[in-house]
Amino acid sequence: MLSWLWASTTPQTSEVEFKGYAITSQDPTKWSDFSVIPFQPKTFSPTDVELRITHCGVCGSDVHTITAGWGEFERPMIVRHEIVGIVTQVGQKVRGIKVGDRVGVGAQIASCGECRACKTDNEQYCPDSIETYNGTYSDGVRTTGGYSTAVRADERFVFPIPAGLSSAHAASMFCAGLTVYSPLVRNGAGPGKKIGIVGIGGLGHYAIVFGKALSAEMYAFSSSPSKVDDIKQMGADHIVITDDNGIFAEKYRDTLDLIISTRDSVKTMPLKAFRSMLWVGGKLVTVGLPDDDFPPLSGMDFTANAALFGGSNLGCKKEAMEMLALAAKKGIKPWMEELPTKECKKAVEGVKANKVRYRYVLSHDLM
Amino acid sequence: MLSWLWASTTPQTSEVEFKGYAITSQDPTKWSDFSVIPFQPKTFSPTDVELRITHCGVCGSDVHTITAGWGEFERPMIVRHEIVGIVTQVGQKVRGIKVGDRVGVGAQIASCGECRACKTDNEQYCPDSIETYNGTYSDGVRTTGGYSTAVRADERFVFPIPAGLSSAHAASMFCAGLTVYSPLVRNGAGPGKKIGIVGIGGLGHYAIVFGKALSAEMYAFSSSPSKVDDIKQMGADHIVITDDNGIFAEKYRDTLDLIISTRDSVKTMPLKAFRSMLWVGGKLVTVGLPDDDFPPLSGMDFTANAALFGGSNLGCKKEAMEMLALAAKKGIKPWMEELPTKECKKAVEGVKANKVRYRYVLSHDLM
Repeated sequence: MLSWLWASTTPQTSEVEFKGYAITSQDPTKWSDFSVIPFQPKTFSPTDVELRITHCGVCGSDVHTITAGWGEFERPMIVRHEIVGIVTQVGQKVRGIKVGDRVGVGAQIASCGECRACKTDNEQYCPDSIETYNGTYSDGVRTTGGYSTAVRADERFVFPIPAGLSSAHAASMFCAGLTVYSPLVRNGAGPGKKIGIVGIGGLGHYAIVFGKALSAEMYAFSSSPSKVDDIKQMGADHIVITDDNGIFAEKYRDTLDLIISTRDSVKTMPLKAFRSMLWVGGKLVTVGLPDDDFPPLSGMDFTANAALFGGSNLGCKKEAMEMLALAAKKGIKPWMEELPTKECKKAVEGVKANKVRYRYVLSHDLM
Repeated sequence: MLSWLWASTTPQTSEVEFKGYAITSQDPTKWSDFSVIPFQPKTFSPTDVELRITHCGVCGSDVHTITAGWGEFERPMIVRHEIVGIVTQVGQKVRGIKVGDRVGVGAQIASCGECRACKTDNEQYCPDSIETYNGTYSDGVRTTGGYSTAVRADERFVFPIPAGLSSAHAASMFCAGLTVYSPLVRNGAGPGKKIGIVGIGGLGHYAIVFGKALSAEMYAFSSSPSKVDDIKQMGADHIVITDDNGIFAEKYRDTLDLIISTRDSVKTMPLKAFRSMLWVGGKLVTVGLPDDDFPPLSGMDFTANAALFGGSNLGCKKEAMEMLALAAKKGIKPWMEELPTKECKKAVEGVKANKVRYRYVLSHDLM
């Protein structure tokens, strides 16, 4: 009986050929040179889902990783964690997903499943969380991202996509979308709330769109006058052009309930100016993971209006499913450019040069 | 009619003689040398209450001020803002307080009364808030603190003291007590909540006592092993001896819902260690106003468990009245030493040398 279970749930071979676009060179000037390599998938477990990847998003975390901005990394490296695909096999214990389903995978591929975080819809804060790429599964296999043919993940980290949402549109929601959706809903985004979004790129544009879908009043803070027309069309109620002197903030003193910062460089961020725009007890939540530190703060900065500074990491599955349902119901689509996966070099270089408007999504050409 | 009103509500003379213990010297080595001087009270307005001071507390803010730690200050300077007294006159529009009542005044003596903060029980965050000493009333008179015979304040900043609470015990509640009571109740202190208090001095000891009265589980973090017996008697459920290497925090990872820091020196505070003890979305709230900055933080520090860093300033009148009622009901008394006001030099020097256990209260000897 045991051997039969093993045979049925952990096949030694898969119909899918596992290969992907990888960074293989140690030369930092070749940070965007990809080559196709085969790789070993994780051992297939009874709670796993395997999917053939059809689309994946491209974002700043790929660039932070392969430029070593977040530290040295092991090569070969297949990046990306905004994955959409078609289910090719499911383990015996999988209940909510079947072969042929259209599903997504975000930036987290595993967690312990047993701790307080995992049991309270906070699995993204599990101390044993494993990242979708640049991590190591419990069987010792390195995790590999979406610039590839296929991925295996525990059902808890695989999200069915509603019929009304296209795969290309859904892909970037699994990191960029969820990363802003979670702090929006955890901080009460809704009617009567005034919410500022700092940095209108991949994450920021989702924050504007989802904030409006949740009926909050949205303030966009951007340093790019060239984006103003786009931001209006995204639905922002107020658009504020910023610089690092902080003068822009004076008009909005004591106004905002929440600020979500997607800024990727914060060393010179006028943190005190942003703080001054918060209403009593308001929060400034960073979802960016810049390479540099925030400017230092004093006790006076903190007590002036009881503002709070904090962060947020990804979102939980419950929030991902709510976000997808909201997107399907309201017809929410990201602003994006679609490229074939073989153009991943162009995509990461476009992200680094801040050329993307507002997300690249790769449609897969590896079979 | 108008002249009669004026005569009845704004007497040109008062039965009280206004004088107090003041810092008059510019010499920084004489920072604790007080001499008795007369002073001009504010114009008495129809919403004002005048009280003859019987007691006042002594705390770190007096020392920060007269040592110029918070910047240069105007002399003569009569400090202190934990005031208790007997009402000697009330303006015509005062409704809740009458002559002879026993009342207190905290660290805030006025606010605009019209803004959103003032209208939502957040008057301590009014942009036009005036401090009880080292500020300027709207009539141009400098505000003077509790090392004096009398004070005048708008009724909104005068708090009746319940019969069950002695004046000496109540005095230090009006700043030290309220400053920790407000963030406790605003952050849900109650059954099932785990709350850490950093620094068990004047404010910290109140936080332990009020946190227990609100039925929270209290963790005391102190760098002073000599205080352990006292802290046990205050009722702390857990006592953790800290140092700036942060190793003490490992045992308490992901445990606390709230940390209130009363630390007065934070340059070397192991902020990341304190952050690591917070449960997902937990808050570290500073109520101290150190002369130095907090250590810088990165995006990774913020996102690791969605912790928030913030501050809190004093409390509102509604919270002050709740705090006094709780103290009267539960028989809460501060740990304190009583001195005559003429010993204010000894008191401020004792605070600076961290000798006080845990609050000095001056009983007045000026008539």
